[in-house]
Amino acid sequence: MTGGLADVTFLGTGSAVPSARRWLPSILVRLRGEYLLLDCGEGAQYRVLRAGLRVNKLAAVLVTHLHGDHVYGLPGLLESLGMWGRSRCLEVWGPRGLKEYLEAALARGEVEYPLKIGEVEPGVVLSREGYEVVAVPVEHKVEAYAYVIVERDLPGKFNERKAEELGIPPSPLRRMLIQGLPIKLPDGRIVTPQDVVGPPRKGLKIVYSGDTMPCEALVEAASRADLLIHDATFASEHEEEAEASGHSTAAEAAECAAKARVKLLFLFHYSNRYSDLSGLLVEARKIFRRSYLSEDLLRITLRRWGTDSLMVSLSKLGG
Amino acid sequence: MTGGLADVTFLGTGSAVPSARRWLPSILVRLRGEYLLLDCGEGAQYRVLRAGLRVNKLAAVLVTHLHGDHVYGLPGLLESLGMWGRSRCLEVWGPRGLKEYLEAALARGEVEYPLKIGEVEPGVVLSREGYEVVAVPVEHKVEAYAYVIVERDLPGKFNERKAEELGIPPSPLRRMLIQGLPIKLPDGRIVTPQDVVGPPRKGLKIVYSGDTMPCEALVEAASRADLLIHDATFASEHEEEAEASGHSTAAEAAECAAKARVKLLFLFHYSNRYSDLSGLLVEARKIFRRSYLSEDLLRITLRRWGTDSLMVSLSKLGG
Repeated sequence: MTGGLADVTFLGTGSAVPSARRWLPSILVRLRGEYLLLDCGEGAQYRVLRAGLRVNKLAAVLVTHLHGDHVYGLPGLLESLGMWGRSRCLEVWGPRGLKEYLEAALARGEVEYPLKIGEVEPGVVLSREGYEVVAVPVEHKVEAYAYVIVERDLPGKFNERKAEELGIPPSPLRRMLIQGLPIKLPDGRIVTPQDVVGPPRKGLKIVYSGDTMPCEALVEAASRADLLIHDATFASEHEEEAEASGHSTAAEAAECAAKARVKLLFLFHYSNRYSDLSGLLVEARKIFRRSYLSEDLLRITLRRWGTDSLMVSLSKLGG
Repeated sequence: MTGGLADVTFLGTGSAVPSARRWLPSILVRLRGEYLLLDCGEGAQYRVLRAGLRVNKLAAVLVTHLHGDHVYGLPGLLESLGMWGRSRCLEVWGPRGLKEYLEAALARGEVEYPLKIGEVEPGVVLSREGYEVVAVPVEHKVEAYAYVIVERDLPGKFNERKAEELGIPPSPLRRMLIQGLPIKLPDGRIVTPQDVVGPPRKGLKIVYSGDTMPCEALVEAASRADLLIHDATFASEHEEEAEASGHSTAAEAAECAAKARVKLLFLFHYSNRYSDLSGLLVEARKIFRRSYLSEDLLRITLRRWGTDSLMVSLSKLGG
């Protein structure tokens, strides 16, 4: 999978208890040919099947906090991955207590591939060839993290037409230019990368807040992200309840998005009391125009456009 | 809910790993106005929602054994029941280790109603006004039980027409006759229960095998049951695999049904390798004619007919 391209699929967008319309929180991100699973509410493995996850591409599961609605799908998924044929190691990261929880849940289970259960410290959690994931402590009722997925910057685009004009033959010389090395042609002319390669393009940045009340650290961490997925459990009319339960309103999610100057905000983790979410969307858009509603089985495809623009497409995974 | 009437709803009929068609094992039984949940595979709470379970009518959860596919739905369901408003005690029964598993899984959760977690001994597990549940040890890879639900016998039917002929007024006297007491009418005539009440009718008997290989104790326990739901993980062509994994073939399930002379056999707990189950049904019917396939969201309604006959209806819960 090429750089500058990511899929984000909402497996469940509800909170606490499921409903016919909204399953429990879980988000599947595909980046650089790998999958990351963000939280794993009960039923995630059914959704993973429906989303057509290619099992061996799952690089890690990242758990924001240990409330049941975010983790009860994990033991079943971990066992099924093995039965679906996984043999290579899987990393599972989350707050303190994750290891104890999983070991107890899996005590009678069979996970035959290596499992690396890691307890998160603030900072870089995962560092892969094409991206890294950073954990940011957020404010909730229990220890909780947001995860910031930062793709590494992409080389500029190679200008084929210009290269033809300059008489650079299709050869390893072109690759060297892309990698930033000046070259000398057989006729003695020197070509620099700037002559044929555009400016580097920014890697994608995707931020998932997990469960959180409004939180300055998250604003900072989400700075200029392409996509922010933010707790929007309540409408502003239930602001006190949001605060008491360590959650955010849709308006507060939008304030975070506005301050962080992100490109897109998707509201997430809705209280079960709202069957119609349009009120949440309206209040968010008053504050941040590029607010949208997540929904179960919605897939967002993000594509870097130019050096720092974004092209978005949406699709819905079939029932 | 009147006596002699039961609903059995298959919430999931698969095994080990789910598929789009078959969820993990869980069965909801309604008898005498109460629900019993037999096993609780991941996702059972979604199915319970779809089946329209009236939460406060859940009397107990009965777990056959502690393999993940039969229990990973339990922590989420227990938490959701509380959030759906349950306040009265719930009993959860299963093999040794159930308490430890649930306590670890729920360590960070909130179950605010009383929970009685019981570890099963062979014999009577639950004794309610209208029925009892008996645990029968079966042969599997780990400690495992079948559950036998035995409704208490029902009084015979009161013959209204006969009572009118005999001039018995609508009064407490009629109730006394139903309860087996002879009465004296104002004119001095004596009426015995046999004069106006039919013979007692047999209570319903429903047996769920859980995971088991062929097992004499189960044949005995299922004797003359109205409904036997039996492990039929494999077809006979995979008999060795069935034995190695502690399961039964469809033919072996049918042999149990035939020996126990049950009224109806429903095959259950299919291996994921069979997308078409007609082979399993064919081999079972060769041995036991009244064999049927369970399927997800199928509801069987059993009604006692006469003293020991059965009237059956089937319905499918909508998507």
